[in-house]
Amino acid sequence: VLSKSQIKHLRSLGQLKFRREFKQFLAEGPKIVGELPGSGIRVEAVYALTGWIEENAMTLERLKTEIVQINSNELSRISSLSSPNQVVALCRMPSREIVEMKEEGNLLALDGIRDPGNLGTIIRTADWFGINSIVCSNDCVDLYNPKTVQSTMGSFTRVKVYYTDLPEYLSNYDQEIYATVMDGDPIWDIKTSGGIYIIGNESNGIRPEVLQYASRKISIPARGAAESLNAAMAAGIIMAALSRVKY
Amino acid sequence: VLSKSQIKHLRSLGQLKFRREFKQFLAEGPKIVGELPGSGIRVEAVYALTGWIEENAMTLERLKTEIVQINSNELSRISSLSSPNQVVALCRMPSREIVEMKEEGNLLALDGIRDPGNLGTIIRTADWFGINSIVCSNDCVDLYNPKTVQSTMGSFTRVKVYYTDLPEYLSNYDQEIYATVMDGDPIWDIKTSGGIYIIGNESNGIRPEVLQYASRKISIPARGAAESLNAAMAAGIIMAALSRVKY
Repeated sequence: VLSKSQIKHLRSLGQLKFRREFKQFLAEGPKIVGELPGSGIRVEAVYALTGWIEENAMTLERLKTEIVQINSNELSRISSLSSPNQVVALCRMPSREIVEMKEEGNLLALDGIRDPGNLGTIIRTADWFGINSIVCSNDCVDLYNPKTVQSTMGSFTRVKVYYTDLPEYLSNYDQEIYATVMDGDPIWDIKTSGGIYIIGNESNGIRPEVLQYASRKISIPARGAAESLNAAMAAGIIMAALSRVKY
Repeated sequence: VLSKSQIKHLRSLGQLKFRREFKQFLAEGPKIVGELPGSGIRVEAVYALTGWIEENAMTLERLKTEIVQINSNELSRISSLSSPNQVVALCRMPSREIVEMKEEGNLLALDGIRDPGNLGTIIRTADWFGINSIVCSNDCVDLYNPKTVQSTMGSFTRVKVYYTDLPEYLSNYDQEIYATVMDGDPIWDIKTSGGIYIIGNESNGIRPEVLQYASRKISIPARGAAESLNAAMAAGIIMAALSRVKY
């Protein structure tokens, strides 16, 4: 049985403030918890329904962590999701420094992505297309927001996500800097590989102080009447187009 | 001032059952309500904060409908969204029959898309790439779900979305039928235009009874470790790849 203070602590991790204070976050659901063994992420406890525990002996053995059997009422009290799903893992936040970023092929940069589902979907799609690192401006939504973790479908264990002062980072970047804007060159014309591709905020696009570092502006050519694409969709289509160059 | 029964009626339209009963739905927020004039969608009333009414005289004049001034407390009581935004339009559901579908270029078919945000994002992206019609299996989420309408960002006024018995529809379709699967031909190899492109359910993909009609299987080649792409993302990348053929 969970104590009130345990429940309170786990629930508090739905908020950025407490995730930062405790350097912990929650990973929820069978699919995402199943990606944790071998990921390098330290799991400090697993809270799960009896059924899940019985069926996942191998995952639990690999996680080498405390296992707490809970009922579905307790699950919905500790979960940060609207549809809690069998298991919640309490994870230690890894510390990440921008180090080896220049060795990589294509990089993605996000300037002010605010929607947690968008960030998660971008991470999942980057993982699909083999883009291993994403540089986020400091005002992007938190990687460990429960909805972000959820919509990565586990890819947050593989794609490295760094938060930094993006203008400063770009001022020191020595390869091509592509900015996704409304009036750039068609993405299909980009034949080279190697560089950083910037996607801007959902409503306002890329800030001028970031845009000034762009060496080339690119766009996804429209054929219809929509005013814009969803930011995650735009990022995904850019990554798809790049994957084709090397294909 | 809104009566209790008005509030109850408007709130009820958050549920499929009542949308079907009354043949009405809600369109919310300045961006989406701003797309309604000239769209062919009949607006039966607009409920809005004073500020929005004052700033949108032209939109209101074009809508030729009843205008009800409400306060922000009333707004949050009638809204189906977690973040109500200034204005709610009560709309009449247009009736749609599958008729002119064979005249079109590329069509999209959705087999069991269940997430309202995914359907809305697919509609918005189709509108960007100039795909004017989408055929949905009867078990797809409702187009007029508040979250779907919201995530179309207004594109639901332009893209025609039809619900039908998808296997039966495909059995009568006489152009190329492409099914998006895990082990098909790379989408980048498709050089022709004209045909229908099927995207399957978020968890289970395309049902066998739909897949049997595919004349060609296609895939989005992966270069990384993610198990799958989000369904809306997959649909968007397919549409982007097709737009490139004609580009």
